[in-house]
This record gives sequence, C-alpha cells and structure tokens, in this order.
Amino acid sequence: MNNFEFLNPTKIIFGKDVEEHVGKEVKKHSSSCLLHYGGGSIKKNGLYDRIVHSLKSEKIRFIELGGVQPNPRLSLVREGIKICRENDLNFVLAVGGGSVIDSAKAIAVGVPYSGDVWNFYSGEATPEKKLGVGSVLTIPAAGSEASHSSVITNEEGMLKRPLNMEMNRPSFTFMNPELTFTLSKYQTACGIADILSHVMERYFTNIKNVDFTDRLCEATMKTVINNAYIVSKNPKDYNARAEIMWASTIAHNNLLSTGRIGDFGSHFIEHELSSINDVAHGAGLAIIFPAWAKYVQEKLSEKFLQFAVRVWNIDQNFENPKETIMEGINRLESFFTFLGLPTKLKHIGIGEDNFNEIAVKTLYGRNGSVGNVVSLGKDDIINILKLAE
Amino acid sequence: MNNFEFLNPTKIIFGKDVEEHVGKEVKKHSSSCLLHYGGGSIKKNGLYDRIVHSLKSEKIRFIELGGVQPNPRLSLVREGIKICRENDLNFVLAVGGGSVIDSAKAIAVGVPYSGDVWNFYSGEATPEKKLGVGSVLTIPAAGSEASHSSVITNEEGMLKRPLNMEMNRPSFTFMNPELTFTLSKYQTACGIADILSHVMERYFTNIKNVDFTDRLCEATMKTVINNAYIVSKNPKDYNARAEIMWASTIAHNNLLSTGRIGDFGSHFIEHELSSINDVAHGAGLAIIFPAWAKYVQEKLSEKFLQFAVRVWNIDQNFENPKETIMEGINRLESFFTFLGLPTKLKHIGIGEDNFNEIAVKTLYGRNGSVGNVVSLGKDDIINILKLAE
Repeated sequence: MNNFEFLNPTKIIFGKDVEEHVGKEVKKHSSSCLLHYGGGSIKKNGLYDRIVHSLKSEKIRFIELGGVQPNPRLSLVREGIKICRENDLNFVLAVGGGSVIDSAKAIAVGVPYSGDVWNFYSGEATPEKKLGVGSVLTIPAAGSEASHSSVITNEEGMLKRPLNMEMNRPSFTFMNPELTFTLSKYQTACGIADILSHVMERYFTNIKNVDFTDRLCEATMKTVINNAYIVSKNPKDYNARAEIMWASTIAHNNLLSTGRIGDFGSHFIEHELSSINDVAHGAGLAIIFPAWAKYVQEKLSEKFLQFAVRVWNIDQNFENPKETIMEGINRLESFFTFLGLPTKLKHIGIGEDNFNEIAVKTLYGRNGSVGNVVSLGKDDIINILKLAE
Repeated sequence: MNNFEFLNPTKIIFGKDVEEHVGKEVKKHSSSCLLHYGGGSIKKNGLYDRIVHSLKSEKIRFIELGGVQPNPRLSLVREGIKICRENDLNFVLAVGGGSVIDSAKAIAVGVPYSGDVWNFYSGEATPEKKLGVGSVLTIPAAGSEASHSSVITNEEGMLKRPLNMEMNRPSFTFMNPELTFTLSKYQTACGIADILSHVMERYFTNIKNVDFTDRLCEATMKTVINNAYIVSKNPKDYNARAEIMWASTIAHNNLLSTGRIGDFGSHFIEHELSSINDVAHGAGLAIIFPAWAKYVQEKLSEKFLQFAVRVWNIDQNFENPKETIMEGINRLESFFTFLGLPTKLKHIGIGEDNFNEIAVKTLYGRNGSVGNVVSLGKDDIINILKLAE
C-alpha cells in the first residue's frame, strides 16, 4: 500500500426532496450566484422552478447561464466567467450532471484569474483561488459532484482535457434519486458505464497489497451492476436509483484511490473518441474499456482473475485461470450490451482511418504515454482501438 | 434507504513516517497547542521525541498533559481544560489511541464553555464552539481519529457517556501503520473487536434496501478479519497493519451509516461493563456482541443469514437457514477466541450479581431503552448478560 492523503470536504445532502433546501446552503457561502445548467430539461420537469423558488426565498441574487452540452465547451465557460465578473457573482451553483458541474468548476477557477482559463487545462498555469461551487445532481455518472476533477473540451482542435486538483471539490451537493427517474434508458446506461469505469480505473493497479480498497471497489461495482438490472426493469425504483446515485459519488471521490495508483488510460483514449464524434463518455468507455482489458490482462492476470471471481461470481477454472479471466471481461462486455450501449467502434461510426488521429490526440502534451498498468504509447493505443473495431 | 447528510472533513495523512510533518499541519491551525497523550509508551518508542521535534521546528508553543487512561476520565479532562485556559492554548494535539483522542475532544469543547464540561456528556448542554483538535493515531480501534464521537467516564458513579456531534471531528489525523507494530497481541485483538463491532452496529439495521452500504460494511469486515490472521502470525506485516488501520477509520466515520440507522445497543451495554471493572472496550464487546446477536437474530434473520454467507463465506443451508445463521454467530465468537479475547463474562470476573447494576446504568438517562434492531429494556439487557454468562 502506498502512502496517501485523503480529504473529501464536499457535504452530501441525499434523499427525497432535499433540493428544496438549496437556497439555505448557498446562503452559507454567498448572497449571489451564477445558476448554471444544461439543455433545459430542468425547466420541463419543474426542478428549475423549485431551485429558483429556494434561491429567491433566501434572497440570493442570481443570474442564469444554461446551455451546457455533454462534453462541456470552453466557449460557454468563458461566457460564464464574463457574466460572473460583470455582475460580481461570488458562487456557481450547478444544476445538472457532470458536464454542468465540470463547466461550473471551470468558471469558478477562471473568474479570479487574469489569464485565459484554458491555461489551467493545458497545464500552462495552476489556479491559486476560485469561487465556491455547489451542485444539485441530476445524472449519476461523472462523480464530479464530489470529485477533484473537471474536464473541458476546447473547440479549437476539439481537445478534451482534465484539470485535477483538490481545490476543485464542490462545497456541497444535493442528491435526490427521484430526479433520476426520468433519465432515458440510454442516459442511465451511459452513467452506469461511467461509474463502473471510474471504479475499474482504480481497481486495476500495479500497486500490491491493497486488500481493503480492492474490496471497497468490488462492493461498489457489485452494487452498480445489481441495481442496474433492477432499474432496467423499473426506472422508478427509488432504492435502486439511490444505490446507483450514492455509488457514483464514492466511485470517483478518491476514497477508492487511497493507497493505490489508478490507470485511467481508457479514460484518456475515450476522451478523444468523444472529442471527435461527441459520443457520450459512458458509451465511449463501454467500447474502450473491454478492449483495453483484453490488451493488458496478461500484465495483471491475478487482478483480472479476482475481478472475474469476486465481481462476476464466476467459478474459477483452476486448471485454466486464463479462461476465467477472459470470461470476466466477456461478462463486462455483455453487461454493457445488455444496457444497450455500443461496445464496438463501428457501432458509433468510427473506423480505422480515425485511429491515428485518436492516438495522437490522446498522447498530445502527455510525454508520449498514458496509463499505469501498462504505459500505453501510440502503437498500444492503435492496437486497443483495433481490438474495439 | 433513508435520507442522509454526510461530510467527513478530517484530513487523513497516512503511511510510513508521516508523523514527522505534524508540526506543519498544527501550524495551519494554531501557533500553540496542548500535547495530550497516555501512559508514556510514546516516550519509550521514540514517537514523543519525533513529535516534539516537529512541533519545535515549526516554533509551536506547547504544554504537555499525559496520563490518559483507557476509558478516559473526566478529572483529567478538567485538568486539560484548566491548562489550556491558563496558558492560552488554542489547539489540542492528541498522540495515542481512541482514549487520548476522546479526551482531547472533551478538552476542546470544555475550554470555551463557562459551565462544567460533563454537562455536554450528560445531555444538559450542547457545545457551541470548540478548539481545534488533531491527532497522531497509535492504536487502530475506536475510530475517534475521524469520528463525531467522544466517550468520557465520570469517576463519580463511574458513568461512561458519549458526546456525538459533527463538530467533534478532528481537523487532521496522522496514521503511520508502523506505530502499531509494537501493540501487544491483546491490544491488537481489542482493537480488532472494536473495529468489527463498529461495522456490525451499523450493519445490523431495520432499514431495508441498503445494498451499497451493506456491501461496504462486508468489505470492511472481511478486510479486518483476513488481515487479523496475517497480523497474528507477523505483528510487523506493514500491509496487514495498514489495512486494519485504514479500515478502523472507515468503520466509524459514518460513511457506513449513510442511509441507515445503526443499533449500538451492544456498545451501550459494554460501556457499563468497562465502567464497573475497567475491561478494555474491545474485550467487553467480544463478550457482549455475540450474546446480543443470539438474543436478537430472530428479529432480523435475513441480515444475520447474509452476515453468515457473505462475511464468513458459510455455505448456506437452504433447508435450514437458522443453522447457517447460528453458525455465522459462532464463527464470530470463535474469531474473538482465536484473537485471545474473553467471550464470556466469567472470563473477566463479572457474575450474575452485577447484572442488575449493568442494566440500570446502561439505561440511565436513556428513556428506558437502548438499541434499534430490538429496543432493549432492562429485562432484555439482563437476558443478554445471561447469554454471555
């Protein structure tokens, strides 16, 4: 086990109707805020009205900025920064999924910075201060509601880059599982693939002797898998939605990283799939992760065997453990297929002619490799894409 | 699943040699502190010198107060409060196990309060402010290093009472597994029983549909059990000590309580065992918990069955699940025996003539009952004690 530091200062307020108290929580931090949201679904389902009512009842001055897209764009972040500066807003309240929260985090670091906010994402500068951020989560997936991460897409070159730092963690997050009842089957599936991938990126590690976090990872994965089957039958099952929602936060708040190093090679490759054809992150991961697993499993066979036996409850073939390992990866792929996700690049219209571009963009600015289980260079990435063809 | 709020603001600094940086961390909070510790073992093993060196190198003014006993006493808390006031100390640094940290928490709430600190523990008053508290943990057991709890024993009547509130959580905790290498077999065992009990108190709940936290509880229990066997063979196995230490924090920081209600009946009964004969808390729990389980298992048979199958890997007897349930409790009791702990009251010299006193003291000031799985009145407590005779 490695040495580590861990602190998650995000206050979680979880359960039915909790978002009615969002105004009170914002008030503890600021008397004004930018109300940041996505494509407007919150206006159709009444959430917007409840949030606005709660803010007004606490006399919080706010200005709205909707329009965040999946794979949130730098241009809207810049617009948010401008609005906050011109109107002296001191807090960003994100109402939505991971894209909205990631965009809010970017606005929050950009406002007090004299340069261009992209400098933080390109690695040319490091934030020193920021506005506070809070969120009302509507899509369990990205884990951004308590994570130290924010991922923004720069339209110039469609480059997608993360900014990971402790300061990024929101002050609070409201999580009402009922808000997820109306997610489509596809949105739900993409979220589940994202959550599962966040755990798997941490689970598959070269660090030895990480028994506790291995087991916490397995607990999280089994929860997500079992409850995904329940939700597929009944999208309004409160408890199953709640299990998935709470698991989504724990999957990515770095508790599961304590004492170990994650891989995240699949995540980085997927970011560039999304950036070239705007596929949902979870759907892209459903394609890349099984291919990555097939490519690297020989280098970490004992953990892939554990994954098959403990997560998928496969009876181990003691004479031929490799068979068990491959069956574990097969079950993962079948699970993604059951969810209705693409598992091959051809399903989303990406072919061999894109492979070089994806590999080059994945490695751009990253010293020639990504990933830890196996350090992946350009040829490795292209081989993984071929396995996902 | 119930609605919940969760926030654990304690920064964990975990690993080899981390305590060398304690001065820097204190400095972020205060330029002075009370250095609070126990019976002096930290002077023998060199830890005291390293802490003092770190505090001095950051020019932190400090005054010492050692002498904390297991089941920490109110009188020493009062002495600590007096020292802090007279010397204008603004922070309490606890170096030791749960008793020292609990005592530090009591001092911290007592200093800015004009009344007697016991008022907080008796429930007559509620703290409004406190000094900051940090810790260097030497015994994984109580979970006090990140918990919202503090338990103090009042020598007048030997009454042991908890003060549970969010404000109680330490600002930081240093956790170096190497500091636990020299714990005796018995201290290690008591710690393991305490950790396991903290999880079981949460695991056995009447709240339904708590799949995720059930699995996190099971992951924590299995980690502690498996690594206890490793440590029993090699007390200096760094990784096994590390797994147990990190599990001790998660067992009691309330992550495992999210969405559910714990029981804690066994804990409250045990507190009064400790208060009448000073038995170590973990040893008392090893006696009370199996007896409690036997007494209440019929009221929560599905969870006791799950405990047997998932935690102890017992093949379920589908024709006679009760047999599996009782075997699960039997394995728990055997595990405590393996650790070298007492599992019967006679092992610690408590007989039937003490039962009435224990029951009365357990219920004192608690409206006639403790526990949630089954609300235990005086007769129930006496029946449990008889099962532990």
